[in-house]
Amino acid sequence: MMKVKVHVTLRESVLDPQGTAVKNSLHAMNYHEVQDVRIGKYLELLIEPSDRPIEETVKEMCEKLLANTVIENYEFEVEEAVTQ
Amino acid sequence: MMKVKVHVTLRESVLDPQGTAVKNSLHAMNYHEVQDVRIGKYLELLIEPSDRPIEETVKEMCEKLLANTVIENYEFEVEEAVTQ
Repeated sequence: MMKVKVHVTLRESVLDPQGTAVKNSLHAMNYHEVQDVRIGKYLELLIEPSDRPIEETVKEMCEKLLANTVIENYEFEVEEAVTQ
Repeated sequence: MMKVKVHVTLRESVLDPQGTAVKNSLHAMNYHEVQDVRIGKYLELLIEPSDRPIEETVKEMCEKLLANTVIENYEFEVEEAVTQ
């Protein structure tokens, strides 16, 4: 079984109101050293290996469903899942 | 300037309906090899160094605001921000 860690983040040029809200809250709590906050998604997928290269499958899933590539970037890394 | 990357994930024992919805969507799109999806948050903070150790500050911010430690775990790493 493979574990895939996906990061979906807003593109640099896109405003992040949720991040701004968190930054303002941190300032209100006296953490004035915080200059910027950007918020994205983090997904962990557990995938059964198949004949198709997993990188290709995950890229397709990101493009089709997990990220909105107009406003978001994605990155992922694949690792062997630790069996419990 | 320091960049802090924070991952906030649901604890193992907590149900993740959003993850289940994404898994079901992926199955509907014929990605049947996906066994499980868990969704968390990913935050990037830009922080001005101060006298206080940054790890201590970030831990406190996570405990107080960024994560709900009853149902969520958090992890973070600190790196030097690349100046542009």
